[in-house]
Amino acid sequence: MKQGAPARAPGGGSGGAERWQHKDLIGLQGVSAGQIRALLVASRGRVDITTDVTDSTLAGTTIANLFFEDSTRTRTSFTTAAHRLRAHVSNLLGAFSSVTKGETLIDTARNVEAMGVHALVIRARQGGAAGLIAKNVRCPVVNAGDGRHEHPTQGLLDVYTLAEATGRLADFDLRGLTVAIVGDIVSSRVARSNIAGLTALGADVVCVGPAGLAPRSLESLAESGPGAGRVRVSQDFDAVLSEADAVMMLRVQFERHGGGGEGASKNSPSIASIREYRSFFGMTAARAERMKDGAIVMHPGPINRGLELDPEVADGPRSVILRQVSVGVGVRMAVLEACAAASA
Amino acid sequence: MKQGAPARAPGGGSGGAERWQHKDLIGLQGVSAGQIRALLVASRGRVDITTDVTDSTLAGTTIANLFFEDSTRTRTSFTTAAHRLRAHVSNLLGAFSSVTKGETLIDTARNVEAMGVHALVIRARQGGAAGLIAKNVRCPVVNAGDGRHEHPTQGLLDVYTLAEATGRLADFDLRGLTVAIVGDIVSSRVARSNIAGLTALGADVVCVGPAGLAPRSLESLAESGPGAGRVRVSQDFDAVLSEADAVMMLRVQFERHGGGGEGASKNSPSIASIREYRSFFGMTAARAERMKDGAIVMHPGPINRGLELDPEVADGPRSVILRQVSVGVGVRMAVLEACAAASA
Amino acid sequence: MKQGAPARAPGGGSGGAERWQHKDLIGLQGVSAGQIRALLVASRGRVDITTDVTDSTLAGTTIANLFFEDSTRTRTSFTTAAHRLRAHVSNLLGAFSSVTKGETLIDTARNVEAMGVHALVIRARQGGAAGLIAKNVRCPVVNAGDGRHEHPTQGLLDVYTLAEATGRLADFDLRGLTVAIVGDIVSSRVARSNIAGLTALGADVVCVGPAGLAPRSLESLAESGPGAGRVRVSQDFDAVLSEADAVMMLRVQFERHGGGGEGASKNSPSIASIREYRSFFGMTAARAERMKDGAIVMHPGPINRGLELDPEVADGPRSVILRQVSVGVGVRMAVLEACAAASA
Repeated sequence: MKQGAPARAPGGGSGGAERWQHKDLIGLQGVSAGQIRALLVASRGRVDITTDVTDSTLAGTTIANLFFEDSTRTRTSFTTAAHRLRAHVSNLLGAFSSVTKGETLIDTARNVEAMGVHALVIRARQGGAAGLIAKNVRCPVVNAGDGRHEHPTQGLLDVYTLAEATGRLADFDLRGLTVAIVGDIVSSRVARSNIAGLTALGADVVCVGPAGLAPRSLESLAESGPGAGRVRVSQDFDAVLSEADAVMMLRVQFERHGGGGEGASKNSPSIASIREYRSFFGMTAARAERMKDGAIVMHPGPINRGLELDPEVADGPRSVILRQVSVGVGVRMAVLEACAAASA
Repeated sequence: MKQGAPARAPGGGSGGAERWQHKDLIGLQGVSAGQIRALLVASRGRVDITTDVTDSTLAGTTIANLFFEDSTRTRTSFTTAAHRLRAHVSNLLGAFSSVTKGETLIDTARNVEAMGVHALVIRARQGGAAGLIAKNVRCPVVNAGDGRHEHPTQGLLDVYTLAEATGRLADFDLRGLTVAIVGDIVSSRVARSNIAGLTALGADVVCVGPAGLAPRSLESLAESGPGAGRVRVSQDFDAVLSEADAVMMLRVQFERHGGGGEGASKNSPSIASIREYRSFFGMTAARAERMKDGAIVMHPGPINRGLELDPEVADGPRSVILRQVSVGVGVRMAVLEACAAASA
Repeated sequence: MKQGAPARAPGGGSGGAERWQHKDLIGLQGVSAGQIRALLVASRGRVDITTDVTDSTLAGTTIANLFFEDSTRTRTSFTTAAHRLRAHVSNLLGAFSSVTKGETLIDTARNVEAMGVHALVIRARQGGAAGLIAKNVRCPVVNAGDGRHEHPTQGLLDVYTLAEATGRLADFDLRGLTVAIVGDIVSSRVARSNIAGLTALGADVVCVGPAGLAPRSLESLAESGPGAGRVRVSQDFDAVLSEADAVMMLRVQFERHGGGGEGASKNSPSIASIREYRSFFGMTAARAERMKDGAIVMHPGPINRGLELDPEVADGPRSVILRQVSVGVGVRMAVLEACAAASA
């Protein structure tokens, strides 16, 4: 696959002079390497900031979290990012009242915008919801996860964390790195955003999982565009393990599989049994030992300890899981600022 | 009806020198035109402000939203207003825990006040709740909707939006204007506050709806007081259409009608069928065309698109619906400041 | 019991020079009188502050409320305290999403810390939860109530309020005072924290209640440590009444008794009947009259009016109940600041 890599650094050129051009961040698929790097470079100045900044262009504004689907972690990360930028946060969560009264997504978003909100952070069960709203409001919209579509700030923070761990923060040139993404890739918006971001910047991605969760068709995700030819699929985690610079474990999402509610999901046909899943695709302590020197283990959280990830690995030296969380706040600060600047 | 209009501008005199005199805003019924104008004049300086103000007397204070009944939109508007004034916001929402533990409304409000809260914004299912609380705390109380009683800030923002659309922001003298309020008027706190505000400032109001929702008895709402003689009732929307300067469509509140929960309400005896309701009382595109030049369409939201209001009208040139939302934030800033000033 | 009191003022010495030494505040049991006084002395500078302070070391930081169990009042008090200190507040409430997804308490807390949060305020159904989290994060943890274990800021605010009412704010030396705690003491974290705080500072405590709720074994709470010998148990409220300088009424917690949910709890074997409970252990108007001159009535809220406390007493001259609420905000400011300072 690496033969297809371009000679020039992906998104390269004059050292990060490119600026983000879009009022919204809906996904990373189809976004150029240069534009992705613009957000990552901006993030460098915001990661590891833990008290309010004095140079925020969003100070005294209001950012609304429209979370049609609940996600305390992502919402808290965006909220903290907004607070660091001295912006106010309005939370509209879950099945909020005007939506239960039959109001449309678009009417809700327009109403919130009309109150003088400067950016909308959207989380929704339906893929495409964030993009639909973005087309119908003037203010910036950041997708915080929409169905199985994308979760672009998660993709960016993962790319950033990988670049940091491999000494590539200067140019975010990921060529020569191989990242294994393991688990239910087909229904993961996190995987989708990561694949787009990683391959655009030159990394090779191996999708690992049972055929139902990591089908051969995933290779078509990179048939064209900036990451063309950089995705392959494997069902043999152990074979991939020794070549991966990073292994990204996906959460086994009991709550999404199966048709019949909470209980039924544990009998999902895609996961024959937890024990079997863990034996083939779990990041056990034994597997962590066989990884390359310096290779890292990532997870978007929340972790199912002892299922896709053993506690010793989650808390061990290869784990950058809490670092991902920290980086996320800075990346979200940078994204909110970049979109606001582009929409001004 | 217009014969009864006073010769002097309602609430007139020395050009807005009057200041709001009450620590609370519980309703507009019985409030003098001069006092209503005081709040509207103050709102002029706050509407269209979209970042924090530097001249707020409420900076560094805390405003509590005590919402015993959920309302994301109204709460978000009050929250944004408080943030613009550099106040903190504490949200106590829904069936919050101390209330489910049997605490009285008054004890809850007194407790919140004792924490050093500077104003309470109250939303409740019971008419009279805000007034009851106001009598039992020292801090300002703003009614954000109590049962079928009043929703005074909605009334004010509607009056403001109408005055703006008709070029009457200078003195808020609404004489000569006719406003049709259409729908379930008898159970609408929004209608009640609007009728009080509009008639006090000299507008004539026509209540339009089926007899069960717009009974003849509504005319008694303006039998005495500042708006005396300015309310009439009609069941013939089309006849009223050609004389109205503004048509205010009320939401068909499925969730309040009928006795038997969500489903049953759609079979409310007051609304024989959605199709019939729409044919007699819906603001269709055809009706919008028959309105006077420059006449506006208002709606307090959330809209039932295709029921009381056609999408083409909601998004069309006569609609000031999103403007109402924007104006609401500024009006609420002014109300919070005026009550705080009066209570100081 | 008083024979055992030390000659020197409890925690005394050089007039409050002692500073709080712990990054966390998990409970008052086993904490020295000097350390408890350190927090109370710091509270003196924060009580009755109702707008933002300019000298906060926590300005521009973020404090997270991790409330696994709901408590609007306590959360609002901590939120207001954080706001006064110019800190941002992140609320993670109830069964928040990552916890319902199976994440552990510790992972949740570590994630929130990784986002750059500077202190965690923990409320949980399980006794020990706050302490467990404190051992697994680097940032300060304040226990806002964990099961039947402790609610130390409630204990501190009660001690402060008592000291204020009895003219002992200068040194918080409570020797010579007798406090009756009345009700379901055995399952009350409020009682547990109060007993520790009151006895450490030299007060004598009488636990009053039916044998099932105030068993003789409570005396062992003060078998050793700073408050040794200062706790006794009585079933005769009327006998205790005449010697108490303060009576602290506990809430009858219907929601905790009995095994079978809401309804069953009212038939708890511990409370034969409401009427009987009230006749033996309620603070009636008649009992309030028989109290000593200047003796006060306290209650942690929310009150069951007419059950453990008559409305005339709750709103009468002996009641310091709303004062407890006001004091609580200042005490929580001081605790957050003291823990932050000790962890720096």
